[in-house]
Amino acid sequence: MPLILVSNDDGITAGGVHALIDALLEYGEVVCVCPDAPRSGQSMAITVNGPLRATRLPDYHGAMMYKVDGTPVDCIKLAMHNLLPSRPDIVVSGINHGSNASINVLYSGTMGAAMEGCAFGIPSVGFSLTDHSPAASFAHCLPFVKRIVEGMLRNGLPEGVCLNVNIPVILSLPEQCRVVRACKGNWSDEYKEYTDPHGGKFYWLTGNFVNEEPDATDTDEYCLSHGIVSVVPTLIDRTAPLPSVPWLQELEKGI
Amino acid sequence: MPLILVSNDDGITAGGVHALIDALLEYGEVVCVCPDAPRSGQSMAITVNGPLRATRLPDYHGAMMYKVDGTPVDCIKLAMHNLLPSRPDIVVSGINHGSNASINVLYSGTMGAAMEGCAFGIPSVGFSLTDHSPAASFAHCLPFVKRIVEGMLRNGLPEGVCLNVNIPVILSLPEQCRVVRACKGNWSDEYKEYTDPHGGKFYWLTGNFVNEEPDATDTDEYCLSHGIVSVVPTLIDRTAPLPSVPWLQELEKGI
Repeated sequence: MPLILVSNDDGITAGGVHALIDALLEYGEVVCVCPDAPRSGQSMAITVNGPLRATRLPDYHGAMMYKVDGTPVDCIKLAMHNLLPSRPDIVVSGINHGSNASINVLYSGTMGAAMEGCAFGIPSVGFSLTDHSPAASFAHCLPFVKRIVEGMLRNGLPEGVCLNVNIPVILSLPEQCRVVRACKGNWSDEYKEYTDPHGGKFYWLTGNFVNEEPDATDTDEYCLSHGIVSVVPTLIDRTAPLPSVPWLQELEKGI
Repeated sequence: MPLILVSNDDGITAGGVHALIDALLEYGEVVCVCPDAPRSGQSMAITVNGPLRATRLPDYHGAMMYKVDGTPVDCIKLAMHNLLPSRPDIVVSGINHGSNASINVLYSGTMGAAMEGCAFGIPSVGFSLTDHSPAASFAHCLPFVKRIVEGMLRNGLPEGVCLNVNIPVILSLPEQCRVVRACKGNWSDEYKEYTDPHGGKFYWLTGNFVNEEPDATDTDEYCLSHGIVSVVPTLIDRTAPLPSVPWLQELEKGI
């Protein structure tokens, strides 16, 4: 009976993680360890200078549920070291309320949890739906979740590779998905500026996503804008091909 | 006159960032935008659901100083969009009090800031010293900082590549550095468990770093344990080589 560790970054009460658990229960024992509140944009942040507490909650449809007062990566680390009865077979994160395609994989707490699972050597995946609404409907995501989880349980993943799966709100071609690369993109106009009652300025994150490769057809952004599920195999080792920076070789001759 | 954006994750009062600024002033105008308090382990976390405030502080040796009540990536984003007089020529993060070699690059706020600078298309580097002490001495780091910054100002860096530079406390071969890859490693025994006065459990991050490639000589960990400065060219695009997961191709045929 496989052991499946589930986490997310939208917190233990999010609809996406409950939909995910319901889809996974047929594959094994599910233990869910999620932040106690939304932790979007937490990337792979860890709590280094304070205590963490894990609280057992009532089971959900047979899944064991914990909330942790920390980040998604804290949840995975604490689960692995202190909460799970044994080493899990796979780590599944999500389903995130909102896209984690393109550059957003860098900031994503959903993918932070998946990357951490991968760092533990466990086949890991993050699922995201391109709908930020708390009331988002996840039903059309579940066939993709199930098929990918079945593949991971059967075949595993290469060492150091996890999956970043993004699902559009409307599938324009029924049940189609593609294995693609992360699109180049950036965020413009990221802050709205305010003035407080005492004349001080403050800022709030907002912004517009800019697709830097609008003509490319082999990217996650292309898929999502064409109603196709994107699957991006994602590395935890970030070393660039050596030597990618020729002038650095000069440094080796002496400073 | 180049414009140099400086940040860190140890906060605006850290010794490492002041040593860094002193080393950079000869190369251009320096603007320093740092967290208002230590934000170690913040990776590429961003503040998405709350306000940010930037406070101008007195100049330090001619450098313009700001503190921000957010993460290292918040500092870079706010600097780029709202604080800097123009687009910077380079982004320099650090000097971190503590190593960011091997897997620690994933959690590092120092490297989070450098990765964010890179995401803006600006040549970016993070410097770290393998000494966590607030009173660490950075003098021996500065020749490496200067040489690498000179190279970046003269030659730039390839798009999507930033540098993760780690410096040992003692250089065993004077002024030697190597361009290497990130070592595979993990952390074991990560949490110390406590019992609160009311019988509840809580946890505090600690742990032991495990080098998974103790015999490899082309890694950052090898360099640091042999008194050599490590330079790891680091990618922001994490897409694995396609197709790295053969069974995923089956998904494309239909779910």
